[in-house]
Amino acid sequence: MSSPTIGVFDSGFGGLTVLRELLPLIRGAHYVYLGDTARLPYGAKSQTTIARYAVESARFLEQHNADLLVIACNTATALALPQIEAAVSIPVVGVIEPVVCAAQQRHPNADVLVLATSATVQSQAYRQHCEAHGLRATEKACPLLVPLVEEGWTDHHVTREVLSIYLREALETCNPQAILLGCTHYPLIASAIESMLRTLGSQAVVIDSAQATAAAVASHFDITPLPSTPPATFECYATDSVEKFRLLGSQFLAHPIDKVQLLNIGG
Amino acid sequence: MSSPTIGVFDSGFGGLTVLRELLPLIRGAHYVYLGDTARLPYGAKSQTTIARYAVESARFLEQHNADLLVIACNTATALALPQIEAAVSIPVVGVIEPVVCAAQQRHPNADVLVLATSATVQSQAYRQHCEAHGLRATEKACPLLVPLVEEGWTDHHVTREVLSIYLREALETCNPQAILLGCTHYPLIASAIESMLRTLGSQAVVIDSAQATAAAVASHFDITPLPSTPPATFECYATDSVEKFRLLGSQFLAHPIDKVQLLNIGG
Repeated sequence: MSSPTIGVFDSGFGGLTVLRELLPLIRGAHYVYLGDTARLPYGAKSQTTIARYAVESARFLEQHNADLLVIACNTATALALPQIEAAVSIPVVGVIEPVVCAAQQRHPNADVLVLATSATVQSQAYRQHCEAHGLRATEKACPLLVPLVEEGWTDHHVTREVLSIYLREALETCNPQAILLGCTHYPLIASAIESMLRTLGSQAVVIDSAQATAAAVASHFDITPLPSTPPATFECYATDSVEKFRLLGSQFLAHPIDKVQLLNIGG
Repeated sequence: MSSPTIGVFDSGFGGLTVLRELLPLIRGAHYVYLGDTARLPYGAKSQTTIARYAVESARFLEQHNADLLVIACNTATALALPQIEAAVSIPVVGVIEPVVCAAQQRHPNADVLVLATSATVQSQAYRQHCEAHGLRATEKACPLLVPLVEEGWTDHHVTREVLSIYLREALETCNPQAILLGCTHYPLIASAIESMLRTLGSQAVVIDSAQATAAAVASHFDITPLPSTPPATFECYATDSVEKFRLLGSQFLAHPIDKVQLLNIGG
């Protein structure tokens, strides 16, 4: 397939960090991104509610001719991947398996620390995937990191202090070789996380799920781009304010978003 | 009406601070509380989305025989009060008018500072209500305060630092005599707000919307309780995890919540 259509779904803007990695990777692809911003954040909601929301969005993207679906949301992947796979008839790539595989390849049999939202941690999805790959995982819920990133405080002393509290608590119980960023908002504070780890005396390596997920998606397509293959294109849908999506989303994508279409699904 | 049924609606747990003030005030009343926890927080969503959600909840409470409806949510009051009033045929009390009236009675013609969520500030509802009562209002969006309260960091140095940043920014542009807490989560950090104001050299008085709203509700009922009138009772509905509602809600109500019923409305 030389010019696939790829659906990318997240509860909000975070999944744009995955789209950012995908855009240069698969030339000729067209991406349809859907942010369920009317019902974000998923991170503190129950499994039943998250599965219901995620399935609605997955069906929308399949109907928009997606050849493959990326669940660029850790919470939806952790709590609803089987339900999403059952609801659509196209391949589905979540964000957890790729980053766990990447960690296992770089640090076999290692101790890893997973930073994530409360719902993702409670699901124990990372722990189960890690165990299946011979990694020992400690999970740490970090509920304030998403609001801090959305406040724009990515390089801010309060964010560093919150990171210091969360990481200090986590490092009391483990000595990890790798840190998995289990939320698509966290790549925006990856360097703050890395430097706080050094301050706290840890040499752990930060592994970003966006890059690992993009590589897993690319492996689904046998693509040798011709010199004439055009760059990838994308279109964005949001279930709430398109103006806010355009402004905040551009930061996550690190690229201007010219147009966002409003989508009215579910509640 | 000696034993009214009163519906109380919020996007989540915050409105329980209003219920807390109502419970001792109207003996014999029965309260039906609905927290739309599946779709919280409303604070960063658009007017259209908030109005749609709030109207669904208001209709549910009217169908549950409420004689009066309290919109114990600043964002829903700011963005959807007219739509809610149009959708039901019972009296509706929002949280904004009562607290502005209380401020005007205590500090006529004063400068006031309103702390609220982004959506409430963008609506300019407080500014308009204040102007109508001869008060000059400055509004300050404080998006991190709700997540900090929900993290349980009500007495925490990070919360004090965030308050210091928000209040310092606000006090650069005004010298208020009163601070209006424009979010039902904020009463849980009212004393931290008050002490940070003193640290920053402000003598402004903090006025709590929960108390003012409860008094406005009580004025709708001509009640002289008999010694035999039983204490008020309440029941709770939530649109997401009832277990989380029970645990977190008990802190906001400052009273154990034994049972929460799951409600499936809208998305």
